[in-house]
This record gives sequence, structure tokens and C-alpha cells, in this order.
Amino acid sequence: MDKNKLKKLLEDVREGRVTPDEAALELKTEPFEDLGYAKVDTHRGIRQGIPEVIYGAGKTSEQIKGIAEVLLKNGSGVIITRINGETAEEMKSFEEFRYYGAARLGYIGDPGTIPRRGNIIVAAGGTSDLPVAEEAALTAEFLGNRVTRLYDVGVSGIHRTLAHMEEIMEARVIIAVAGMEGALPSVIGGLSDCPVVAVPTSVGYGASFGGLAALLAMLNSCASGVSTVNIDNGFGAGYLASMINQMEGIK
Amino acid sequence: MDKNKLKKLLEDVREGRVTPDEAALELKTEPFEDLGYAKVDTHRGIRQGIPEVIYGAGKTSEQIKGIAEVLLKNGSGVIITRINGETAEEMKSFEEFRYYGAARLGYIGDPGTIPRRGNIIVAAGGTSDLPVAEEAALTAEFLGNRVTRLYDVGVSGIHRTLAHMEEIMEARVIIAVAGMEGALPSVIGGLSDCPVVAVPTSVGYGASFGGLAALLAMLNSCASGVSTVNIDNGFGAGYLASMINQMEGIK
Amino acid sequence: MDKNKLKKLLEDVREGRVTPDEAALELKTEPFEDLGYAKVDTHRGIRQGIPEVIYGAGKTSEQIKGIAEVLLKNGSGVIITRINGETAEEMKSFEEFRYYGAARLGYIGDPGTIPRRGNIIVAAGGTSDLPVAEEAALTAEFLGNRVTRLYDVGVSGIHRTLAHMEEIMEARVIIAVAGMEGALPSVIGGLSDCPVVAVPTSVGYGASFGGLAALLAMLNSCASGVSTVNIDNGFGAGYLASMINQMEGIK
Amino acid sequence: MDKNKLKKLLEDVREGRVTPDEAALELKTEPFEDLGYAKVDTHRGIRQGIPEVIYGAGKTSEQIKGIAEVLLKNGSGVIITRINGETAEEMKSFEEFRYYGAARLGYIGDPGTIPRRGNIIVAAGGTSDLPVAEEAALTAEFLGNRVTRLYDVGVSGIHRTLAHMEEIMEARVIIAVAGMEGALPSVIGGLSDCPVVAVPTSVGYGASFGGLAALLAMLNSCASGVSTVNIDNGFGAGYLASMINQMEGIK
Amino acid sequence: MDKNKLKKLLEDVREGRVTPDEAALELKTEPFEDLGYAKVDTHRGIRQGIPEVIYGAGKTSEQIKGIAEVLLKNGSGVIITRINGETAEEMKSFEEFRYYGAARLGYIGDPGTIPRRGNIIVAAGGTSDLPVAEEAALTAEFLGNRVTRLYDVGVSGIHRTLAHMEEIMEARVIIAVAGMEGALPSVIGGLSDCPVVAVPTSVGYGASFGGLAALLAMLNSCASGVSTVNIDNGFGAGYLASMINQMEGIK
Amino acid sequence: MDKNKLKKLLEDVREGRVTPDEAALELKTEPFEDLGYAKVDTHRGIRQGIPEVIYGAGKTSEQIKGIAEVLLKNGSGVIITRINGETAEEMKSFEEFRYYGAARLGYIGDPGTIPRRGNIIVAAGGTSDLPVAEEAALTAEFLGNRVTRLYDVGVSGIHRTLAHMEEIMEARVIIAVAGMEGALPSVIGGLSDCPVVAVPTSVGYGASFGGLAALLAMLNSCASGVSTVNIDNGFGAGYLASMINQMEGIK
Amino acid sequence: MDKNKLKKLLEDVREGRVTPDEAALELKTEPFEDLGYAKVDTHRGIRQGIPEVIYGAGKTSEQIKGIAEVLLKNGSGVIITRINGETAEEMKSFEEFRYYGAARLGYIGDPGTIPRRGNIIVAAGGTSDLPVAEEAALTAEFLGNRVTRLYDVGVSGIHRTLAHMEEIMEARVIIAVAGMEGALPSVIGGLSDCPVVAVPTSVGYGASFGGLAALLAMLNSCASGVSTVNIDNGFGAGYLASMINQMEGIK
Amino acid sequence: MDKNKLKKLLEDVREGRVTPDEAALELKTEPFEDLGYAKVDTHRGIRQGIPEVIYGAGKTSEQIKGIAEVLLKNGSGVIITRINGETAEEMKSFEEFRYYGAARLGYIGDPGTIPRRGNIIVAAGGTSDLPVAEEAALTAEFLGNRVTRLYDVGVSGIHRTLAHMEEIMEARVIIAVAGMEGALPSVIGGLSDCPVVAVPTSVGYGASFGGLAALLAMLNSCASGVSTVNIDNGFGAGYLASMINQMEGIK
Repeated sequence: MDKNKLKKLLEDVREGRVTPDEAALELKTEPFEDLGYAKVDTHRGIRQGIPEVIYGAGKTSEQIKGIAEVLLKNGSGVIITRINGETAEEMKSFEEFRYYGAARLGYIGDPGTIPRRGNIIVAAGGTSDLPVAEEAALTAEFLGNRVTRLYDVGVSGIHRTLAHMEEIMEARVIIAVAGMEGALPSVIGGLSDCPVVAVPTSVGYGASFGGLAALLAMLNSCASGVSTVNIDNGFGAGYLASMINQMEGIK
Repeated sequence: MDKNKLKKLLEDVREGRVTPDEAALELKTEPFEDLGYAKVDTHRGIRQGIPEVIYGAGKTSEQIKGIAEVLLKNGSGVIITRINGETAEEMKSFEEFRYYGAARLGYIGDPGTIPRRGNIIVAAGGTSDLPVAEEAALTAEFLGNRVTRLYDVGVSGIHRTLAHMEEIMEARVIIAVAGMEGALPSVIGGLSDCPVVAVPTSVGYGASFGGLAALLAMLNSCASGVSTVNIDNGFGAGYLASMINQMEGIK
Repeated sequence: MDKNKLKKLLEDVREGRVTPDEAALELKTEPFEDLGYAKVDTHRGIRQGIPEVIYGAGKTSEQIKGIAEVLLKNGSGVIITRINGETAEEMKSFEEFRYYGAARLGYIGDPGTIPRRGNIIVAAGGTSDLPVAEEAALTAEFLGNRVTRLYDVGVSGIHRTLAHMEEIMEARVIIAVAGMEGALPSVIGGLSDCPVVAVPTSVGYGASFGGLAALLAMLNSCASGVSTVNIDNGFGAGYLASMINQMEGIK
Repeated sequence: MDKNKLKKLLEDVREGRVTPDEAALELKTEPFEDLGYAKVDTHRGIRQGIPEVIYGAGKTSEQIKGIAEVLLKNGSGVIITRINGETAEEMKSFEEFRYYGAARLGYIGDPGTIPRRGNIIVAAGGTSDLPVAEEAALTAEFLGNRVTRLYDVGVSGIHRTLAHMEEIMEARVIIAVAGMEGALPSVIGGLSDCPVVAVPTSVGYGASFGGLAALLAMLNSCASGVSTVNIDNGFGAGYLASMINQMEGIK
Repeated sequence: MDKNKLKKLLEDVREGRVTPDEAALELKTEPFEDLGYAKVDTHRGIRQGIPEVIYGAGKTSEQIKGIAEVLLKNGSGVIITRINGETAEEMKSFEEFRYYGAARLGYIGDPGTIPRRGNIIVAAGGTSDLPVAEEAALTAEFLGNRVTRLYDVGVSGIHRTLAHMEEIMEARVIIAVAGMEGALPSVIGGLSDCPVVAVPTSVGYGASFGGLAALLAMLNSCASGVSTVNIDNGFGAGYLASMINQMEGIK
Repeated sequence: MDKNKLKKLLEDVREGRVTPDEAALELKTEPFEDLGYAKVDTHRGIRQGIPEVIYGAGKTSEQIKGIAEVLLKNGSGVIITRINGETAEEMKSFEEFRYYGAARLGYIGDPGTIPRRGNIIVAAGGTSDLPVAEEAALTAEFLGNRVTRLYDVGVSGIHRTLAHMEEIMEARVIIAVAGMEGALPSVIGGLSDCPVVAVPTSVGYGASFGGLAALLAMLNSCASGVSTVNIDNGFGAGYLASMINQMEGIK
Repeated sequence: MDKNKLKKLLEDVREGRVTPDEAALELKTEPFEDLGYAKVDTHRGIRQGIPEVIYGAGKTSEQIKGIAEVLLKNGSGVIITRINGETAEEMKSFEEFRYYGAARLGYIGDPGTIPRRGNIIVAAGGTSDLPVAEEAALTAEFLGNRVTRLYDVGVSGIHRTLAHMEEIMEARVIIAVAGMEGALPSVIGGLSDCPVVAVPTSVGYGASFGGLAALLAMLNSCASGVSTVNIDNGFGAGYLASMINQMEGIK
Repeated sequence: MDKNKLKKLLEDVREGRVTPDEAALELKTEPFEDLGYAKVDTHRGIRQGIPEVIYGAGKTSEQIKGIAEVLLKNGSGVIITRINGETAEEMKSFEEFRYYGAARLGYIGDPGTIPRRGNIIVAAGGTSDLPVAEEAALTAEFLGNRVTRLYDVGVSGIHRTLAHMEEIMEARVIIAVAGMEGALPSVIGGLSDCPVVAVPTSVGYGASFGGLAALLAMLNSCASGVSTVNIDNGFGAGYLASMINQMEGIK
């Protein structure tokens, strides 16, 4: 049941066309399929409005396959996050499975058929940040967004960032990915006037404390319009940027 | 110089109607007014697209007044954040100054004349979180957004949150404000399908460590579409929510 | 010497039927068996009232076997916590040894003969939390409790939790297991009116800091009746829940 | 609506004596009274089963009075936590208000009329821990429990603890309050076989880091049956201990 | 005894013109004057090469005066760091005492007579960082350096920094002062090719944790040539920058 | 384009010999070569004034080779930091590649031809600190500095440090490398009157927390002239020390 | 009952001259006096062997007086730690009360009559560390030890420490007190061959984090024979040093 | 040169029998042997008074052998700390080398010939703490002390500790080793009246944070006479306990 069906159902209740009892029954009959190890939301569409995602970390390949099968019965494509090469190998029993190793992402379905709209920039500070940046960029693409990648634009070479000034000013949303001192979102936030999703990465050593330095820097950004997701959470950034990029205008 | 003027200028350069030299000159002549203690952006509009804001913390009332005067010459309203009652008292030399004590916000201009559009929900966990929630809500209103307040909807009384289910599902953006365990954004993020801006507050004691507990909880939220701003940063949340709420649709 | 025998002995002293000297002698003769590497309490029953437990982490299989043999001489079943598959393999020299790999628990004896009483719910947020949840659930079962498992009921899909509302309201004790933002105990604590034992898990990444985020969230829970055990301490939660579930009524 | 009425209502629905619509209506009509700054649960009894509590920190005396008035309409006594002497002074407009300064607790009603049952021990390490210990002890008494206070029984004078050995072994629940190294719950947990609720206090200096040292020690307690609440959370401990002490026996 | 005299003495020993005994005696006779509460180095010049400094924090005005008197006997000017207005008032018994309130610095002597050489830039992110920036700038000036102040050049308004590009490229040393996300040294370090001394400030709130966020960011700077001093340590930065600015060329 | 060429270009603009357009064009035509995974600065010389460096951590050997090839086209030597033995093996396709295993540094070119000037001391506390000390020392040598190594001069054997008193007093810059309690820079800073670059190492265990203890000690050094770089950042220290050592005198 | 009496009693039991019952009775009759708010050990002598101490922090002057009266009945002098001037004023009702303001210590009795033996050095890094150093020195003197004070011997002026080399080598125990980088115990530990008790102080700012930096440095000291007490715990250091100084030789 | 020879030399100087020059020469001629990678103190005896120790961590077997050879030339036994089995295997080229695997200690020489004096107790909380406890106990034995081991006497089974009451009261020094909540030193410190050296271990999981919980608990111990060494630092505790145990009586 997708969101529109749900809204219609609720309107029917308000208008008296459906009794609350009937509505409750309809909602209750198919909320999730219980696999024992997981309850798979088969009408999650009502609450989130987008294709299905399996958070792969901490799940066996059997569990992932089981969940994917239920989701695919509903017809949508499936994104699988945080899976390593070994698990990916076993996922090949799904004919349309593709693996994006750098980003540790898998996709079941044909990403080429997804129409891409709007304009999300994914900017990254250094070569080592690419895995997280790619996780964000691919997630956004699978969710139907047009993505521009600006990689290796770290703040200690500010001319490289400025060289992309025009693209930055045209973006609808920007994902700024950086490790070490995590300054990229502040600089980009000052140059743009769109929402900036900051993604700290665990790239660094010593006093980076696994990404803590970058995380704190981003939370303290003096640029307006910046918010932050968890360390290395490229998926979360891509998902949120997609939500924002696809906002409809106020009617 | 607002954003549209800037874009036009750049297009003129591209089309050859203006030489780069002329454009650079035009940009250079008025970028900011230097008050000694502060460089006031008088064409910040080009980069951020909205009314002016003075971050009040750590500034004397003389400094705030000086900056406000420069900004008002350009005709826009002025929001002043983080000012205490004493400083607010001195700001009354501005005829149209209003002070919102709970939120530590001041506004110069007539907020009643600001048209309000779209739909932002500000949800807060408990009575003690209201100052931060109000800072977010008022900021959003001053920036031209319609705001719905849902206060005292903490997760340990989930029925209170569920009672507002329909409003939550209708929002374009939600600001979720909570201290202590900081669980509100996770619950709301699961109930809605719009971006959720999470604001941890320093409300709590002991192992809340000044809001750290809530901050970490929000960064680790398992709900999609959630991002986080600094502890007690109601202004930042309101500003970002405004940006998102006022997104134009993809053309 | 079990608790009842001890109380009788003390009463005998108070009544003058036994001299303190005699009592002290009786207590002193068998307090523990010293294996060199461990002092095994053979009348621990007096102080704790329940079957024996060996904390397996940091012990060699020889040490575990040695302790188990002493304990079994006293006739009770033996729970062994935190043992890996390799050590478990070596424990098979005990005929009745069973290994529960997911929970890293071993049991010597026949768990099927343990009568199960009362009603403990073990609720867990996600698939990755199952090992800790199972450690809690099995511990509680071995200690003679009836256990209901509610898995994959994370707070970002609140309808899944609410679907079990009636079970939650019927429980005598609830163990709430969650990693990441650790919000489950707050939500469940608000829905129930029985003690909730919160177990943070190390599930998560980045700013979860090995379970610290969930731990802090649980300690700051705004729901009443919630207390917290160490990160990943499923055994401790199961043991405590058993104590509470088996409380006798006030006479 | 108390818990029994609720269960009856749900059974009526199951048996068909009441339609779900009617039940929902009944539940919906009085869930909470909205004071603007707070939503007061007037049928919280259904979910928690005990007298009402106002968390006083961060609320003005006007807000506290407003909430108290609504709660008193339902006839129960009211506990107010974390209020300072000044606020307490203003609460004296309630005739039956009593203030317990050391514990920063207020009570509206006559605590002398509360019947006290069972047996909770509140043990505290040092004189400086008394405010938190008293918050726990008074809370438990207001909720109808018999309380035994064992103060100044810190682990560095173990003979003082042992002098109370018999009382410790007779308790149904023990609240162990300690600052500094926080070892009391471990020692008491080893001496007793009932649940121990550990309360770290912020008493100490230097490397106690505001109670963090005691908190970590308690979370790592090697004694079984110990769980921990937030630093200085005497109220939470008293509330939980009351829940456990008043457990009915398994039928 | 200044550094040149010391080197001469040591050479005399090497050449046999002075016996080690005689040298040791000379060195031993005047190393410091013992005031009981402090040992004042009266030939510290040998080891540090510059005017005298009294670290004022934690010292009474009597102690500061006592130390200043000893130092002035040797003829040099005296810098007093971290003194508040009250102590400064009492220092006015020294005729030539001057107080710089914003920087909490005092100077005994006539700073106008100090010749200023070379070129140190002190750049600061925001108005609130000025006290620390001024402590650095004044220290450097008192130690004989020419100082250029670039204030309010935070990274979220990068055009303000770029407007000073030429000055930045001409500097011999740069002191970069910033609170919040602490990104300024990274940006400036990338634009310049001289040593950058980074000074984190405690300016900020919430997750700035008293300057920790800025400190970590600076330690993790990906720009080369950047090193960091303690939070708010303007004096230390000014002192080090002076050392570097006044380096003689390699002979 | 090196720094002198850049200054000349800017002067030409100021004198009117070159239009800004022409200057901008010249600057724009060759700022960096984009390899897809990295933007290689081929005129970084303008901003930093020294040979090229590749930060090797997190890059594949293919990426390092690609970048090195671009840099070598410009004729300079190349330092590669933080590469392990395996990657170093693959770098041997460059004829002049040398690997310094202890310091995890590689160099392409003939270091024997680099003229060495001035005087940098690298002092280290213990044998375990040598890898970081060597990274600093080799970096400084590759950048054209004369380096004196003083190893195993930890503060708990102060006579060993004092035995090098004369060398310490002759240095132009000192790099002080230490793990554990990190006291070396304080002692050396008190003995010398030149800038001291402090490098904390991750050597230690337990409460060294991966170098945090040494880092904090160095940041809090009470000796003047000390600044600190990231934990284990031998490269950064060597680079900065080189900048300082090669300072020209004030004209 | 002092230690010798206790040993005699136990020997009497072993020899059969006293029954265990009689011994237990004797021990039980006077272990402590219960004041309600504190249990005062009146035969603590058996376990600790030295004069009585009242830890003053967190106690009212009434409580302190009550405890002091009980202790004085047993005839010994009384040390009161951590009392402020106000409380000290009220203690003057005891005729022989003396207050040592800098160290926040009080003493009831005549310290002039205490014989002083052995040789404890109290060394301190800076003027600001004196309060903690004096707390240690006075405690040691009250407990009957001869104390030598070496103040202002911080490691950044190592010649000041070396000037006291002979005293350092003659000490039986050394207490080394330091804030900021906390390096003094390492340097002194390397110069001496007696136990060194390290006391970190909260002196410092910024990254000293209230003494954490000094504490970690001391715990990581590479000198042998060093152990550490809590931040600012001068009393504990003086007490421990007294124990060590007064060790009898092995018989 | 041992300590007595040094004292004699200094007395000779004071008495005029030796000139300072001659004394300095004698001291200077043999302070250490420089192996390049280490400076080996061959007259460290003067400063520390005991057999030689090589800190093995971070050293290659070649380096350890080289240092050992120099030390053995001076005739003393050699303790090697923190070496793994592999390195130990290579040390067998020394005929008298013995390896103690559990404690990761090696000894060159015949430990059977070391006379053992006095009385040190090594108490440990649990089986998992044995490696650290053994490192302490063996170190103390190699340094000539009689050692009594009390293992598995954790505070949650206080009767086991009390069973050794008499031994505890007879000790000259006690080393208390514990992980998890680290309460053992507090309990033992309250039972004894001799110095207690507390050793936190990294035994535990979750919120033990690698021994931090135990470390903080020990630093905050409310028992007098307790000091703390680094996490897992059995060697340091054994060395310090030896110093204390072997104190001569005050003459």
C-alpha cells in the first residue's frame, strides 16, 4: 500500500465512506511479513515513499536473501548497504544483482532504468573519502536523482573548490564528505545557498579518533544550512539528499 | 546584490555583454562593510538568499547595534540570536525591536508582515526543551514559513505522539527537539516520510553530559531521513528547515 | 548449603540451639574449593539462591572444565557464558553439554527438565542485536523462566512495537535490547508498567562508539522503571530479570 | 482510568460486548489535558499503576502548580522531584504541601496515610551521598514501601557493611548509592540474593568526572543482579525499587 | 647573563681560559632569586633570548609584584599574562604599567619604544575570538614584531579571506585563531607557504566542548606547515610566532 | 609555476603590463591535472615553495603511481608518505625509487643530490619512537635540511638529555618526539631558545589511549616556543621544521 | 583498640586463652559510634594505625563538629580536610583548632608537639600548585614526618630541579605535584631511587581538561617507582607518603 | 657505579678530598653505552639501586639481545618485560634465559639464587587478571622480595577476601589487581594499614573501555594509602612494591 492509497483510505474514513473498523482491518492485514529473524515491511511505502533498502551489516547472506525475496514480490528494486565482497558473491543468485565494491553497495534491479531528476552534488575532500562519497552518490542515483561528483576538493587547496563555484551555486542539495579536520561543509556552506548534508568520514589517524574530529567540526560549522549524519554514513546522506532534492514546490 | 542579480551578471559575462574585469569590479566594490570588529556582508543575499542574521553570543550590544544599522540600510529585517534580556533592553533604541525571551531571540522589523508558506512541524520532547524549540520555531517563522508546534510529545508517552499522526504525515519538514535520551527523531522519522532535522538539547543531568547523550543518539538514529545539528542549535535547525520547506519543485 | 539451611542455622544460633562457635565452624568448613586458578563457591547457593554460572571469557577450557566438575558434584546444572565455538567443542567431554552458538552460551544438563514460570519479554531492536538478546533469553530460560521473544521491533517502525501492545502490558519484566540510538527501552518503558532492564549493544558504527551512544541513551531514559546493564551484557539482564520475575508476593 | 478498567475494556472488545469504535472513543476522550506547556496524563494510571509524579527540573513554579492542579483533580497524591527551596516556598499555596530539602523533593498530600509494605534497603557510602539516598528513600516511601536506611557503609570500612549482614539478606530489593569509586553495589550484590539498583552519585572530585567513575564501576559490576540508573537519579531508583518490591507472586 | 655571554663562557672553558670550576661558580651564583613562592630566573635570557614574562593566572597580585620587581632590576620590560581587571588595578603601583583588558595582558614599560620587525599576520574567525587573537597580537608586538590583524575572516565567508590573499602570501608567519569548527588554519595553510600557528578558542557551545572540536580539527589539518597550541593560548602563539619571525637566515 | 613567477605575474598586473584577464587565464590554464581519483596540483609550487609530496595512506599503488608520474613531469623529486612494504615493492617500477621501511617513507629521485642546510635536531624519547622520529628526520633531509638525531633521550634519564646540551643550544629548530607521558618537549623547550615542534606518538599502552596522553601533555607544555602536531605525524613535523629552518633573515 | 591490642586478642584466641565468642563480643562492642549521619570508627586505629581524619567536603560544620567530638574522646589529634574558611570559622569553638587556608586543612590539637621523623620531599611545579602541595606537606607533618618543600621546580626550567639533586637523592619518599603537562614525577623519578607519589593538579586551562592531561601523563610515566593519586588529592599523597616513610626495616 | 660509591664520591667532593672536576670526570666517563638504537645505562645502579630491566615492547629481539649483552657485562641479572613467545624463543641463545609466558616476562640469570625478603601480597580479582598479577608477582620476586599470592578474591564474594584477613594484616605492601569495576583496592585498603598499589587491568568488555572503568575507580578510592599505576602495568607495581618492601627503618 503506497502513500497515496493510504491518504485515500484516511479520507474515505473522514468522509464516512469507510468505517474506522474497516480501515483498521485493511491496515492490519498486511503490515509486515515475519521471517523470524526480521519483520519485513511490505507496505513501508506508506510511510517512506521510496524503494526498499536492506541494511546489510550484521546480517547473514541467507537473511539478506530472505528479506530481498519478500521485497521483490512487491515489485520494487532493492538497495543493499554495507555488504562485503564475499556476501555480494552469494547474492549473485539474483539475476539482476550488481555489486559496487568501493561503496560496499549492492542493487537488485536495473539501475539504468531509473529516471534521474534534479541536481545533487557530492563533494569529497580526498581520495581516501571516495568509498563514503560513492555510497552517497550511488544511493542518490538509485533513488532517482541526478548526481554531480566533485572529488578531491579539500579545503587546503581552496582554488580547487572555487574552480567549481558555478556548479555549487546551481545545486539543489550538496553532500559534503570529509575526514580529518572536516572543514569542507563549512566552506561549501558559505559558498552555496542550498541545504548541505555533512558526512564525516573515519579517514585520518591519531587525533582524528575514528572520525570524531571531523564529526565535531561539522556539528560546529558556522555556516548556515548545514546538518550532519553519522560518521561514514554515506547511505543516510544520499537518502536524505534525495528526499530534499525531490521536494515538490509549495502549492 | 541578490542572487538573481548575480546570476544575471555571470550570464552577461558568458554572453560577452560584460567583460570579466567589469564584473569583478562590480563584485568587488561592495562585498562588505568593515566595522573593525566585524566585516558585514551587505550582499550576502547573493550567497544565502534570505534575510540577515546576527549571531549575538560574544558580541557587545554596541557591536550588535553597529552591525544591525549597516544591515538595515539594505532594507531587510534582522534576526538577532542568543541575546540575553539585558542586551535586549539596550536594543530597544531600534523602534521596531521585539524580544522573545524564552528563545533568546530578537527581531528588528514587523514579523506580522512576513508571509508564511508551506508547513514545518516543530516537535519537542518535554517542557524543558521549549527554549530551543521556540528558537527553531520563531526562526522559521521570521524566515517566512508556516509552523506547527507539537510540544511535550516525548517517546515515553508514545500515545501523545501518535495523537498527532496525521499532522506528522502532512509536514514538509519536521524539526524534532529532545534532550535526555534523544529518541524523538527516531520515532518521528519512522512515522513520517519527510526530512527530519534533529536538535539535541542540553536538558538532562548526570550521564546526559550536557546533551552528548542526545546528540549521539540522534547521530545513530536508525530512521532514514534524519540529520542532526549542534546541541541547543534551534536557530540552525529553523534556518535549515526553512531552506528545505521553501524548495521549489524540480522543473 | 542452600539459603534455607543457612537461615535455619542462624535462627538456631539466635535461639541458643547452636553456639556461634559451632555455627562458624560449619560455615567455615566448606566455603569454597580452591583450584589454584579459581576459588569455586560450593555453597554459593546460600548467597545467590540459583544454579551455578561460569563466566567463560578469559578462561581456558581446562579451567572451565575444572570448575564445572566441582560444581556438578553439588548436583546443579551449569551455565557457561561467553565461550566460543572452539572451547565449546572441547566441552563436549561432558555428556550433557549443549552449545548455543549465536548467544555464545553453553549449558551442562538437560534444559528441557527446567520448569518455566512467570513471564519475561525479551524485545530487540534489530537483527544484529539477536546474539545479545538470545544470551538474555536463554539465560532466563535456564534459570526457570517463561520467555517471550519480540525481535525486530525497533523504534523507527513503531507500528511493529504497537502490534505487540497486549503482550507488553502482560509482562512481569521486560528486557529491552538495542544498539545504535538505544531508544527501545524508553518507548517500551512508557507502554508498560513493569520493570524494564535495558541492554545496550555494541551494534552500530561511527558515533555509536562501541555501544556508548546506546548506553548513554538508556541511562538518560525519561521513562520510569528503566535500569541499565553493561553493553552487550545479555547474561546480566537475563539473570536480573529472572530474580524479578520470580519474586514472591509480599506476605 | 486505571489498569484494571483498561483490561476490562479490552476484554469487552474481544468478547464483542463493545465495538472497537466505542472503545477507541472512550480511550480518546480523556487521554491528557493540554496546558499548552505540557500535556498532563490524566489516565496515566493505566500505563504505570501508581501515584503521579512531576519532574520539577526546568519547570517554573507556575507550570508545576498548573500540572499539580490537574493531577489533584483525579484525587491522587503528587510527588514533585528536583525542586529547590525557592520553588518549594511558592508551592505552599497547596495546603498539604511538604518539602524535603535535603532530597529536593516535595509532596502534596499526607504521606502519613500511605500504607507501607515489603522491604527496601537504601544503602549509602558516605555522608555526602545522603541527598541522593534520601531522594530514593522518600520516593519509595511515598509509593507505599517500607524502607530501611543503611547510611555510611562504604566499602573501605567493610566491617560496617558486614554489621548489617542480616538486614541485607532479608531485603526484597536494595538500592545502593555511592559516589567516588562506586564499589558499594558490587560488595552488596555479592552479599545478597535480591535485585540491587545501583545509583552513582556525582560526589567526588578530580577523576570522578562528575560521577562518571562511579557510573562506569557500577555498569561493570561483577556481582549478578545489579543494574544501574543515571548519576544522582535517586527518584528513578526509588521508583524502580518500588515496582520490584510490590511484585505479586507468580500465580 | 644573556646568551652571548653564556656561549663565550663555554668557549672559554673549551679553550682552557676558564676552568670548569670557575665557570660552574659563575653560573651558579645567580641562576634565580628565590622568593619562597617562586624562583625567579634572572638570567633566563641565556636560555630563551627574550624579555621576561610572568604567567599571571593563579598568582596573587602580591606575588606578581614581587616577581616583577626582581625582573625589573635586570632592566627588561615585563609582560604579565592572564590577569583580570582587579589585579591590573593593583599593578598600577608600577608607574609604567599598562593594561589591555580585552586580551587580559599587562605590560610594564613603554611598548612604544619597542622596535618592530618582520611580518606576522594574526587572522581570526569571528568577533568572539578577538580576546585570544589580541593576546597573540600584543604579545608578538611586545616581543618586537610587526603585526597585521585580519579579523572576521571565517571560512564560511571565504571571499573575505580571499580578499586578503596578497597579505597572506607576504607573511613570514601566520597565527590563525578560530573557535567552533576550527577550519581557518587549514584554509590559510593551503593559501600560504609560511608556518601557520593554529590557536583553537573555547568560543562555541554544545558539541564544541570548550574548544575541543576546534583543537581536534587543527591537529588533523590536511594543510602542511600547521602546528597547534593549547586552547585559548594566544600568548604561546604570539611567543612562538615571534621566535620564527625573528629567525636569522642560514649563514 | 613557482612562487617567484607568480609574484612577478601579480606585479605585472599591478603595473598594468598584464591585464587581469590575461593573468587569470594564465593561472587557470594549468592549476591541476585531473586524474579522476585526484586533482594533482602541478603548480602547487606557487603556494608551498617546495618539492612534491604524496600522502600515501588510503591510496592504491596505481593511484600513487599515476600521481607520481604527473608530478615527475614537472621535474621535482617526490616524497611518498605512509606506504607499507607491499606498496613500496610495486613502486620499484620507478627506477630511482627508494624505500625507508622503518619510517614508511618512499622517495623517487636521488636524495644524495639534495643540498642540506641549517640545523634541525630530531630528539626522541625511546627506541619505540624511532619510526616516527625517522619519518620526521628523513622528511627534513629530503626537503634540504641538515639533521642531527638525538635518540633515546627520555626525560626519566635526564642526564642523557643534558649530555647533548650544547647541540640543543645550537639548533635552529628542534623536533621532539615522545610517546607515553610526552614530557620531552617541555624539558627540551626549557633548555633551548628555538622553536620546538612536538610530536606525540602512539607508543604506550593502557592509559596512553593511543597517544592521547602524550598529545595532551604536549599541548599543555609550560615551556614557551612549543607547538604540537598530530599523533605520529612525523612528516608534518619534518615539513614544518624545514619551513622554519629555511627562513630567510628579515631584510 | 589499637593494632597491637587487636593482634594480642587474636593470639589469645589462637592460644585458647580467649574463646572466639568472647573475642567477637569484645570486637563488636565498640566498633563505631553511630551519629545517624555518620558511623564514626572509634577503633579505626586497629586497621589504619594513625591519627584520625575527617574528610570535610560535603559535610556541614555541625556534622564535622559531631564527628570531631567523638574522635577527640579517644584522645588523638584530628585532621579535617577540604574545609573552606567559613566552616573553619565555625570550628573555632574547639580551642586548639588551627586553619591552614591555602591548603584548606584544619587541625585540632597542637601540631608543635608531634615528633617528626624520616624525610619526605614535596616538590611542586609552579606557584599555582602550592595549595595541593601544602595539603600534602601539612598532612605528612601532622602524621609525624619531617618534610622538605621544593617549590617552583617545573621541568621547563630543569636547572632549578637539578640544583636540588642532593636533597632528592637523600629522600625516603617524594611527593611530586604538578598540573599542566604533569612531567615532574617522570623527571624526579629518573633522578631518585625512592618511591615517588605523583599528584596531578587541576591547574591549567584548555586541553588540561581539569587535570586530566597531568593525570594521564603521570599514569604513563616511563620512570620506575612512580604511582599516582587522584587529581588535587594532596591529602592522599601525604598520607601514603607517611605510611612509606615510617616503614620499619625488615627484621 | 652503585649508589654507595656515588654517595662516597659526593662526600669526597664536599670534604675537599676530590675536586669537582675530578668528580665530574669520573661520572662522565661511563654514563651509558650508545648502541645507536639505545643508550644503555651501565651505572644506572647509582640512580635506581636495583637489577637491570629491559622494557621489551616495541623492540626487536636483536635490540633486546644487544642491550642485554651490555648489561650482563656488568654482572647483574636482567628482567625483560612484555615479550611474546616468539621473541622469547630467540632469547634462548642466552643460556640462563627463562620465559614466563602467562606474565610475558623473561629473566636472564638464575632466579633461584635471589634471596627473598619481607612480605608483599599480590591480590587479584579474577582468573582473567592472572597475567597482570603474575607480572607483578614475578617482578617482585626477581627483585628479591617474598611474595604471597591471593588470587580470585573479587569483591563480589567478600567472604573469600575476609578468609585471608590475617595475611592481609601482616603484609608490608599489597598489590591489588582488578579489572571490571576495580573495587578490590578499596576493600583491601580498608582492611589493611600498609601501602596498597592498585593495578587496573583491561579485563572486561563494553563500558570497561579497556580498563578505564577500573582505573577511574582506583583513582577515586575512598580508602587511604592507595595509589595507582597504569592499566595492566604489573611490572611497575612489582617494582614499586619492592622499593617499599625493602625500605630500611628510620635511623
